[in-house]
Amino acid sequence: MHAPLELADLAADTLTRIRARRPRVHCVTNTVAQQYTANMLLAAGAVPSMTISPEEIAAFAASADGLLVNLGTFDAERRAAIGMALATFGDNKKPWALDPVFIERSPGRAQFARELMARRPAVVRLNQAEFTALSGGQSPEHFAKEQRTIVALTGDHDLVTDGERRATIANGDPLMGAVTAMGCAGSALVCAALAVEPDAWLAAAAALLALGVAGEIAAKEARGPGSFASAIIDAFYGLDRAALRGRAKVS
Amino acid sequence: MHAPLELADLAADTLTRIRARRPRVHCVTNTVAQQYTANMLLAAGAVPSMTISPEEIAAFAASADGLLVNLGTFDAERRAAIGMALATFGDNKKPWALDPVFIERSPGRAQFARELMARRPAVVRLNQAEFTALSGGQSPEHFAKEQRTIVALTGDHDLVTDGERRATIANGDPLMGAVTAMGCAGSALVCAALAVEPDAWLAAAAALLALGVAGEIAAKEARGPGSFASAIIDAFYGLDRAALRGRAKVS
Amino acid sequence: MHAPLELADLAADTLTRIRARRPRVHCVTNTVAQQYTANMLLAAGAVPSMTISPEEIAAFAASADGLLVNLGTFDAERRAAIGMALATFGDNKKPWALDPVFIERSPGRAQFARELMARRPAVVRLNQAEFTALSGGQSPEHFAKEQRTIVALTGDHDLVTDGERRATIANGDPLMGAVTAMGCAGSALVCAALAVEPDAWLAAAAALLALGVAGEIAAKEARGPGSFASAIIDAFYGLDRAALRGRAKVS
Repeated sequence: MHAPLELADLAADTLTRIRARRPRVHCVTNTVAQQYTANMLLAAGAVPSMTISPEEIAAFAASADGLLVNLGTFDAERRAAIGMALATFGDNKKPWALDPVFIERSPGRAQFARELMARRPAVVRLNQAEFTALSGGQSPEHFAKEQRTIVALTGDHDLVTDGERRATIANGDPLMGAVTAMGCAGSALVCAALAVEPDAWLAAAAALLALGVAGEIAAKEARGPGSFASAIIDAFYGLDRAALRGRAKVS
Repeated sequence: MHAPLELADLAADTLTRIRARRPRVHCVTNTVAQQYTANMLLAAGAVPSMTISPEEIAAFAASADGLLVNLGTFDAERRAAIGMALATFGDNKKPWALDPVFIERSPGRAQFARELMARRPAVVRLNQAEFTALSGGQSPEHFAKEQRTIVALTGDHDLVTDGERRATIANGDPLMGAVTAMGCAGSALVCAALAVEPDAWLAAAAALLALGVAGEIAAKEARGPGSFASAIIDAFYGLDRAALRGRAKVS
Repeated sequence: MHAPLELADLAADTLTRIRARRPRVHCVTNTVAQQYTANMLLAAGAVPSMTISPEEIAAFAASADGLLVNLGTFDAERRAAIGMALATFGDNKKPWALDPVFIERSPGRAQFARELMARRPAVVRLNQAEFTALSGGQSPEHFAKEQRTIVALTGDHDLVTDGERRATIANGDPLMGAVTAMGCAGSALVCAALAVEPDAWLAAAAALLALGVAGEIAAKEARGPGSFASAIIDAFYGLDRAALRGRAKVS
């Protein structure tokens, strides 16, 4: 539906806007992922915040341009914080993303993720095991259409669909799976893109294409997952239109 | 009791099994250590999870192959989570490891660590100050025998004993002490080894030998503790039988 | 008031004392910043601890040589922990530092920061937006004098003043703003310096000068914020008198 060069250009435009506008992205995310997610957002040009305190999350969400809800920890405090953040953020009709981490391992988390779908995330970013647990075996297109959301399914290839349009992104590197919080960081980048790009399908595809291209650049110089984790942040920070156009593998 | 080459080969076998089976290791650990521990486990080929939520930790522990109990934070929520994780994991008679971080600084933590000894950890991984606080001055061999556990005492040299057998590992590098959570990550590697190696003494010695050898490889190219923290993850990821055999200093 | 070479020498002296005495610095800080802060303290030669558990924080504070109160997360548990830590630490008349992160985004946090000023932090380390929220538009000198504290205001240039003396430090690199927790880590270094240098103004200026010089050294080899985050830790670890004297830009 989009030629590689077209999506590469749109991704470059999105990056340019993130760097110029510096959107504030508030992340309700797990403690494992907080530091890496914050550093990836900073590398993209966004401004991260991470508090989950019920006493102040509404204030942070009210002044944020993007919101990530990551279920990597599932407890009463975070559920309350998520509810408050969504109420504030949703009142402003701003788009948010859901990352239902590891819901296949925890029935309570899976149930909560299904409840959150009713709050209409603009994008759901997840892997195949999580998608199966969330959708009960529907196809990504069917689930996206029924839930009126964008499914951003990451793995060897990334698939981004709104039920009608579909982008398959074959960029990235296997080392991305050997760094904790890489998926969480990708979801946060989707939120930064949603803050500057009104087409949520395009925002999600742009963010994941950019991350995949950064991963390929990083893999060239990494000696393993430790140096790769830093190198992909460097690569995202330095990503430009030429690299996106030269490397995009989109169908 | 084991010649260096013999332990090096057994450590290589253990690594091969971790990479092939990809054991799930659930870590109840402190927030300082979570990211680094997760990345070290991923570099080893294991699959980390980290939630401490009382609402779901039993589900995670039930589907885990390894369990780490790290006392780096001591509060009511974590104590409850530890109890639930041990109940679930222990019902399956699976071996777990205890890391009693900083118990010499906190009497309550030390008391809790002593109570946990009654739950029979397969391995206790700790430094000298922590061991003195836990054992009240007993020798490692005596404590291991009395408590029917493996003592894995790390420092300039690492000592691993079940009261009868004893391995002294002289690998490693001083920079390992300048990276936060290195000990915690070592304990998590012990858990990954316990998931694939039924002899707990051998599992602990294999994991610590592998980490020490990775540390030596990393130190050759590191310019300080920042680059070392990444380089040891790279080195663990790429560790092979030849490096283990060529570098093992075990007596 | 201090020539660059004079402050460079005093900073080198401070570093030497930190490395020799290895002060214990307890940090009540947010979960995003914990790992990076701990690694920076270790690179400096200090011994970090991070628990916020109400059951043990008094024990940790009682045996600490330095204390950081960082408001990066604002909830009831942390407020209670801060109160206990200050009571214990303050009873010993030891100097502590306040880092009022993001108080411009959260009225409750700002109010709490103002209350903490009455507990007399030796140093307040913050950026311009945070200082404006805390001081209500006073000048740094006026605020420092009125509150009997040291204001350490970081940004393109760092300003350290007690109301009478003033150091302006023009070291550092823009990449420092692209790494999460860099400011928090700087505040922790101030605490390590306070533990070994009785002149709080000098301690704060020494710590920030050393971090700025380390940042310049790191920027020479970094390829982006990912590698820079490691490189500045390497540089701080290796920092010596010659580098401080050769690079200090103080007026």
